[in-house]
Parts: sequence; structure tokens; C-alpha cells
Amino acid sequence: MTGSTQAMLGWLRHYRRADLSHDLVASVTLIIFLVPQGLAYALLAGQPPQAGLYASIAPAICYALFGSSAALSVGPAALPALMTAAVIAGMAQLAPAQYAAVAAALALYSGLLRVALGSLRFGFIANFLSSSVVGGFVCGSAVLILLTQIPNLLGVPSHGASAVAIVEGIWAARHGIDWAAPAVSAGTLLALLACRKWLRALLRRIGLGETPADLLAKAAPILVMVLAAVAVSLGALPLRLVGQLPAGAPPLAWPPVAWSALLPMLPAIGAIALIGFIDSYSIAQMLAFKRRENVDANRELIALGVANVAAGVTGGFPVSASFSRSAANELAGARTQLAGLLAAVWMLLVLLAASGVFAKLPLAALAATIVVAVIPLVDLSLLRLAWRYERADAWIFIATGLGVLALGVVDAVMLGVTLSLALFVWRTSQPHVAELGRVAGSEHYRNRLRYTVQMQPGVLALRVDESLYFANFRFVFGSIVGVLRERPDTRSVLLVLSAVNAIDVSALQGLRDLNHGLAAQGVSLHLAEVKGPVMDRLRHSGFLDELSGAVHLSTHAAMLALRGGDAADFVI
Amino acid sequence: MTGSTQAMLGWLRHYRRADLSHDLVASVTLIIFLVPQGLAYALLAGQPPQAGLYASIAPAICYALFGSSAALSVGPAALPALMTAAVIAGMAQLAPAQYAAVAAALALYSGLLRVALGSLRFGFIANFLSSSVVGGFVCGSAVLILLTQIPNLLGVPSHGASAVAIVEGIWAARHGIDWAAPAVSAGTLLALLACRKWLRALLRRIGLGETPADLLAKAAPILVMVLAAVAVSLGALPLRLVGQLPAGAPPLAWPPVAWSALLPMLPAIGAIALIGFIDSYSIAQMLAFKRRENVDANRELIALGVANVAAGVTGGFPVSASFSRSAANELAGARTQLAGLLAAVWMLLVLLAASGVFAKLPLAALAATIVVAVIPLVDLSLLRLAWRYERADAWIFIATGLGVLALGVVDAVMLGVTLSLALFVWRTSQPHVAELGRVAGSEHYRNRLRYTVQMQPGVLALRVDESLYFANFRFVFGSIVGVLRERPDTRSVLLVLSAVNAIDVSALQGLRDLNHGLAAQGVSLHLAEVKGPVMDRLRHSGFLDELSGAVHLSTHAAMLALRGGDAADFVI
Repeated sequence: MTGSTQAMLGWLRHYRRADLSHDLVASVTLIIFLVPQGLAYALLAGQPPQAGLYASIAPAICYALFGSSAALSVGPAALPALMTAAVIAGMAQLAPAQYAAVAAALALYSGLLRVALGSLRFGFIANFLSSSVVGGFVCGSAVLILLTQIPNLLGVPSHGASAVAIVEGIWAARHGIDWAAPAVSAGTLLALLACRKWLRALLRRIGLGETPADLLAKAAPILVMVLAAVAVSLGALPLRLVGQLPAGAPPLAWPPVAWSALLPMLPAIGAIALIGFIDSYSIAQMLAFKRRENVDANRELIALGVANVAAGVTGGFPVSASFSRSAANELAGARTQLAGLLAAVWMLLVLLAASGVFAKLPLAALAATIVVAVIPLVDLSLLRLAWRYERADAWIFIATGLGVLALGVVDAVMLGVTLSLALFVWRTSQPHVAELGRVAGSEHYRNRLRYTVQMQPGVLALRVDESLYFANFRFVFGSIVGVLRERPDTRSVLLVLSAVNAIDVSALQGLRDLNHGLAAQGVSLHLAEVKGPVMDRLRHSGFLDELSGAVHLSTHAAMLALRGGDAADFVI
Repeated sequence: MTGSTQAMLGWLRHYRRADLSHDLVASVTLIIFLVPQGLAYALLAGQPPQAGLYASIAPAICYALFGSSAALSVGPAALPALMTAAVIAGMAQLAPAQYAAVAAALALYSGLLRVALGSLRFGFIANFLSSSVVGGFVCGSAVLILLTQIPNLLGVPSHGASAVAIVEGIWAARHGIDWAAPAVSAGTLLALLACRKWLRALLRRIGLGETPADLLAKAAPILVMVLAAVAVSLGALPLRLVGQLPAGAPPLAWPPVAWSALLPMLPAIGAIALIGFIDSYSIAQMLAFKRRENVDANRELIALGVANVAAGVTGGFPVSASFSRSAANELAGARTQLAGLLAAVWMLLVLLAASGVFAKLPLAALAATIVVAVIPLVDLSLLRLAWRYERADAWIFIATGLGVLALGVVDAVMLGVTLSLALFVWRTSQPHVAELGRVAGSEHYRNRLRYTVQMQPGVLALRVDESLYFANFRFVFGSIVGVLRERPDTRSVLLVLSAVNAIDVSALQGLRDLNHGLAAQGVSLHLAEVKGPVMDRLRHSGFLDELSGAVHLSTHAAMLALRGGDAADFVI
């Protein structure tokens, strides 16, 4: 049923000249987003500012070469930056000089892991994360990111990456708070929020078209940044600044991390690989939907993996798709992956020619950008839906979200996955089993508790409303034995399998035991409405030869056959 | 659907005098089994021999009071004894004097855990273990038990509980092997195997009835034991003997294990609680089946928990139901839990009056009993079935079995559970999605790839053959988008939900996104054949108000409505 996906680099082989101007405009939009986001997410990840710019070049080029989505912007992003910071904070014996090496190693090895998983066609692992887990994780992470930025907003040093450590650090440093950093933060925050709220309408009113107004409004952060830098320079305020960046292209180097240091990082590498992939894949799917394209999970996994390997060997940190940049790229009219490729080229030019312009940028203003970017991630709409629709899923959302704050990002993912699998097993472990009777005068058979139906003495017809597998077969067959005790006159048990999409080997063995146990008591077991694929496998297993009763095409056919007392009719 | 279970102690309130003689005979059968098994499983668990006799008293009484199965014999058993030995071997810094305290603590805390789980109605956790995992685990454990008994059979000291440690220990001690222990082992083994094979037929031939012959044949171990003890005494062989047991009732004491030592034991406590429960519950279900009784998982969990707490505070070790004893009890005609209760009383009398008779019993003969009892557990029939029916399940069986030998019992359970959940998610993550067409002249709609059908232009009717949940909704909705790209003329998408038993909140959100995305492209989304419970929840969630199309009773009704171009008909 899946449509064919675009071949690798297909966009380049079939490039149409008409697309060039669109991709060019989109690439300029992208670079306007990338510069402040790169600096800000480097700050969030606990990395030197240039790392964020480096992480915007090679990974974007690699994604353009290997990825399938035209509009996806792969580079610095909030979640992997936060997870990087959490890992670094968790390694107590680490010297600050090693932070960059650890971040690069996280990118490199989580990238290699993704390439391996994608090559082995393990893209389905994305399916282990339910929406409640992802929703709770993103929400909890957003709150944690907001907490991590409070020290930067207040101009005090920040320690640790857990919620408790951050709050303790702020409390300990409360007497060192000067007026300058909070003032710049508050000014930047207000300016950014005002831009988000009113700039678009203002631009529209002064005559701009819809799309340019949209894009300019979204690109406000870079304008506000410039204003903040100018204000700080003119006032000579006592603030922590970004400082002089090393000029030149990203360095090419294998991260100097010993194998022995890698072992304790493995759970984090796995979690970053998984979360980063889910995040990117969801954004790619959303963008593809509009274009009626299909995204191949395994190819995306490989492309994102290669992008992270590239980030790891060029002085970057773990990267992922950014929703805000990808949406802006799409809105700006990106037609092919060339938009992302060109943006990487522009970033390289910025590094080569103009790295000096960032020196005066205050960290407080960058922190304000992070805050404004992250606030929309605190999205409780799924929680509200789940609360109404399925309370247990709401609790998983809450547990995962609080888990991020209390246990850390990696353990929170594990907790969420474990809880949602447990919930799924619990949910399907006691399936609905309906006892059927005949709707008078018809060939229809319905639940005797919901309809007025005629029962046939000596026959117990049961419809199981769930696939039979290891988690529910004991319950189902136990229920049957329970009903039999109340109906000692039963001669035949008929299982109606219209809703059974599969029978696993545990359930098959249970079915064999049921068949033999019933036969020992003189009760025959019959099946009806068995689906094609299930029938094929039951026949292949030899179970149908053991079956004391017969397989019937329909419930009605079975009832007719069993009424005659001769079950040999209608046998397939 | 579940039948009512017998109320607690209901058997005592409604005790009929006619049952007394049956229960009395069964209790004598039980004690004949319990004495050699108690001594042998104490040896297996690395405990002093009296611990096995202690573990046959209070736990059996507690199960009789709280449990629901009349024939289940709870006491020393192979799997919990093996797991106890594995935990003790894994605690390197433990002095031999502490072994008994650790074993008692394992029983006590795994018992408390089971009581807690059962009270919270968590009996469904048994469902996490598929037959492949249990089958592989039992098989691997049986092989491991056989390995652990080789030193006892050869008369050399045994070290460790992992397969590698045992084999290394035997190799290191190979020069210390005397002729006496192997001779007694071989003699006992041959006698036991001969009894198993021919004794029943022999007894029948000399005129015994079927049931007495069966029971006597099964009780052969105690006769062989007595013969071995006599032979050893007469020959004054240089053998390790059971030795003098302390006379008197079991001691009552809380196991002296510090809280700090408990923490590393937690995974083992969890695994013993789970495996012991599954084991007992399966046996109880099998016995209940014959009597058309129903076993309540939560009540069994509590009863087994109380039995283990009792074992823990009376100098025992983890207990469980024994299949051989329970089957013999059933065969001997046990009518109520009084049989188990009386057997406990006889065991107490043995301890008070006759503990001296075991002193001359050679360990080699006990080891031979264990070997004979455990051989039938090496059961590969499920593996053969799975190999034919579902290869992946066969690999889980093999992985869990080898896991017991390579990783140990606790990690093997974790591995098996993780693999089977992963397999289940993988299996259901790419469900069958059929595109439907009309069987000419009928109201039936079938898969267009399997039948010759008529298609309706502009309408895409898809039947999803699986419940929609977090692991498969991305695939299903991705497929739909893929098909839409190939059919740009589609105006309506109809989802036929006849095989969808549930929609979780992740899939619901996916469905909302699909609905909005399709609407934005001028394609309406319709549903048909929605099951009652699914319909109720969809309506409650508010999704039906958002739905761009309508909900139709049947596929045919939907097709008629969509042909008219007016989807407003048939709306529920």
C-alpha cells in the first residue's frame, strides 16, 4: 500500500530551473532563522557558540543528499540540545574542556546507531513511542528548558541540568543578581513576544503581502538580537556576551572520547537516537502530508544518522529537524533540498567572513530567544483529549512529563515506553467476549446482552473481539470454562473469529489445550468466520486436523450444522 | 463472562463428611512426595535439608486457607529453588552462614510483593509472559538444574550457579572424583528411571487397580531413597550425607537481612514473584479446567504471596506449586484443600518425631531424584510448533532458554519479555489494509486484489485489519496518503472499521490530523461499520463533530451515499 518514495538525490537529477528562485528565497529565510537558533541552542546544549553554527552546515548538507523531505531543516534543535546538556550534567567527573568532545561523541555515535538501525530496516522502533509519551516528553522537556534558561536570563552562572539542581543553583546565586541581565532579558522577551503577536498584522497593514509579512514576522528574532547587541554596546552594560568566535570553516576531527567513557553514555545515545528520529520523522510526515508525499522511515533514519555523524566530526552536537525552521522553509516556498543546501553555504560564508559580528551579543538575549521558541512546546491539548478519551493515557502523559523533571530525559523515555506497553497489554488482556444469539427470522447473530435473540440449546456461540495472543488467551479460554460450568448441557462450543486478526503461537497452544480439554468432557469445539490469513496459518500448523469440531464459513452455517447434530456439514 | 469463584475458606464452611476419606488418602500421597522433594529442592536451593521440610508446612497451610484450587500443592519446587540458588551465587561477598537468611528474605519479600500486586488487582502481569518465554525459560532452567546437580552426582563440591561457573568447577575438581558417589548416583538414577518406566505396568500385572498402581509408581522415589540409605549404611561408603536434622517445629523468625542488602535483590525478588506466580497459576488453571472451575488470578497471586511470606518467616525458601505433587494429589482423589492441610500436619509430625531417619541419606541419591524430576521439563514441543507456525516466536524461545544459561535466570526473563513485546509491536505495526470494491450485483465489498470487484470512481474504501493504536497508526495513515497520491481524483476516503476493536488516543489524534489534512485538500473522510464500543468513545471525544464526512452503518450504505454525491444520508 505504500507509495514509492523519491530516489536518493532524485531532486538533483530532475532539477527544474523554475524551482531555483523559490529555493533561493527559502534558503535566505533559513539562514535568518539559523543564526540566532544556532547560537541559542549551543548555549542550551552547554557548548561554545560556534558549535551551533558548525552544526548548521555539514548536517544540513548531508540531509539534503540523503533525506527525502524537501522542506525539512536539519540542524540545531531544542530537544537534542537539551538531552546533550543533561548527559553532560550527569557526568560528574567531566572537565568543562571535555564538554565539546562529549557532545560531538553523542552526535557521532547516535548517528552511527541510526544508520545501523535504518540499514537493518528498524525504522518501526518509532512505533514504540505513543503520542502520550512523546507529548509528555516534549512538554516536560520544554519546562526543563525554560528552567535551564532562568540563570541566563538573570545573569547568574548555571549548574546542572536536572530541575532540582537548577532551582538550587538559582537559589544559591540569588544575591549575585544584577539589574542589567534581567533588564536586557525582559526587554528582549517583550520585544519578541510583541513581534510574534502584532508584527504580522502591522506589516500587513502597511501593505506587505501575506507570505512576506508572515516570514518577516517569524524572522523577528534576528532583528531583536541586533537591537539588543547595539543597546548593550552603546550602554556598555556589565553582561555576559557571546564573545569573539573563531573565524573559519568547521574543524574536521574525530571526537577524542575514550571507549571506556562511551559505555555509560550508551543509554543516552540510544535515547537521543530515538527521540531525535521520532521528532524529525513526525515533522517530515506532517510536511509530506501537504504534498501527498510518503516518507520512508528507514531512509529518514539513515539520513538523520548521517547528518549526526557529520555534526559529530565537524565540531557540532546532536542535531534534528527543527519544526519552526522547517515550517518557515515550506512557507517561503522551498521546492527541493537545494534550499537547505544553499542555507548551509550561506552559513559557511558567515563563519568565514563575518564571525566577528556576534561578539557583542548578550547571552541574556539568546536565552530570551530560547524561551520564546520553547513556550509553544508546552502543549497540553493532547493531555486534555486523553483525559476525556482515555484517562490512563493522560496519566502516562503526566508521568512522562514529570519524569523528565524528576528522573531526567533518558529515564523518562524508558518510563513512558514501559508504561504505554504495559497499558496496551492490560487493555487487550481482557477482551470483550460476546455470547451470540440469533436475531429472530434472520441470519444475523448478535450479543445476547444487547439484543433480543434466540438461543440454541446445547450450543455456546462466542465472539472474541480482539486478536488472540499471549496477553489475552488465558483470560478468554478461562472465561469459556467459566461459562461452561454454568451450562452443563453444552455439547458444542463455537468460536466466532470475525474480529480475530491474528493468533500467535501462545494462543494457538492455548487453543489446542482448550480443544483437548473440551473433547475429554465430550464437548466439541467449532470455529466460524475465520479470516483468510488466520485460516492459512491454522491449517499449516496442523491444528485443524486435531480440532474436535469443524470450521464453518459463517455463524449461521455453523448453527444450522450444529442443530442437525451432525457437525460434518460445511467443513472446509 | 467470568464465573464466580469459590469464596475464601468456602470449602471448610461447606465441608461434607463424605470427602474426608478422599482427602485423607490424598494427604498421605502428598507426604510421600513431599519428603524427598523437600530435601532435594533444599539441596538445589543451596539450603540446609530441614529448610525444604519447613517450606512444606506453613506455606501449604496458608495456601489451603487463601487459595482457590483444591488440588494445588504449594511448597518446595524446582524453579524457585533454582532462582534462589542463582541469587545466592550472584552475591559474591555472602558468607555461607547467610545463605538461609537470604533465601528466607527472597521468599518473604517476593511474597509481600505478590500480596501487594494481587490486592491492587495486578494479576494481569502474568499476561506479559508469552508461552515462548515461559517455555524457553523452563527449558533453559531445567538444563541449568541438571548442570548444577552434576557435582552432587559426582560427589565433588559445587560452586556458583551459572552454567560457566559450574562447568569450570567440575573441571577443576575432576581429579577428586571417587567411585562411591557416581556409583550411588548411577544406581539411584537407574532405579528411578526403571520405576518410572516399568513399575506401573508391573503393579498392574500383579493385580493392583489402576489408580493405586499409578500412585505407587509415582511414589517410587521415597522407596528408592530408603534403599539407597540402607545400602550406604551397610557398605559404610565414603559419601556426603544429609546428616542429622534439628528436631522440632520450624523456627519463627524475621529473616535477618539489612535493608541495604535488599536493594540489589529487588530484580530477583520481582522475577521470583512473577515466574513463581505464572508457574502456579498455569498448574491451577490446568487442574481447574478438568473440574470446570475458574481460577481468579488476583486471588491466586495473594494466596501464593501469603504462602511465601509464611515460608520466609519459618526458615523456608521461595515456594510455588509443584506440578508433580499437584497432579498426584488430584489423581489420589483430593476433594478439598483439606488434603494439603493434612499433609502439612503429617510433615510437622515427621519433624517432631522422626527427623533422625534422614541422617544417612546420601546427597548423590537426592541429586538423582532432582535429575529424574527435572528431565520432563526439557520440553521442546512448543519450540517445534513455533518453528512451523511462527518462526520469530521460536527464536524468542531459544533466546530465553540460552539466556538462562548465559545471562542467568533474572536477565533471561527480562530479555524474553522485552523480545516478545517488541515482536508484538512489530507484528501489529504494519497491519493489512485492503482496498475494497463491490462484488458485482451484491452488497458485499471485498479486497480488490483477491476478488473481481467493481470500483466506484472518486471513492477510496479501505478496510484496516487491526485495532488502531500508537504502534500502527502512522503506518496506516501514511499508507492512505500514499494511495491518495496515485489517485488524484479521489473525493472521499471511506475507512471500514469492522476489524478495529479499539482506537487509542494516539491513533485518535492521528485520525484528527488525517481528517483535517484531507479536508484541506478537499477530500472528505467517512467511517463505516464502526463497532459499538469504538463508536461510543469516538462520539464522546468530539471527533464525530469534526469529521468532514459521515459515519455509515455499512460499507454498502456508505457507497450508496457517496455515489449520490451527498454524504448527508445515513448519518447516525
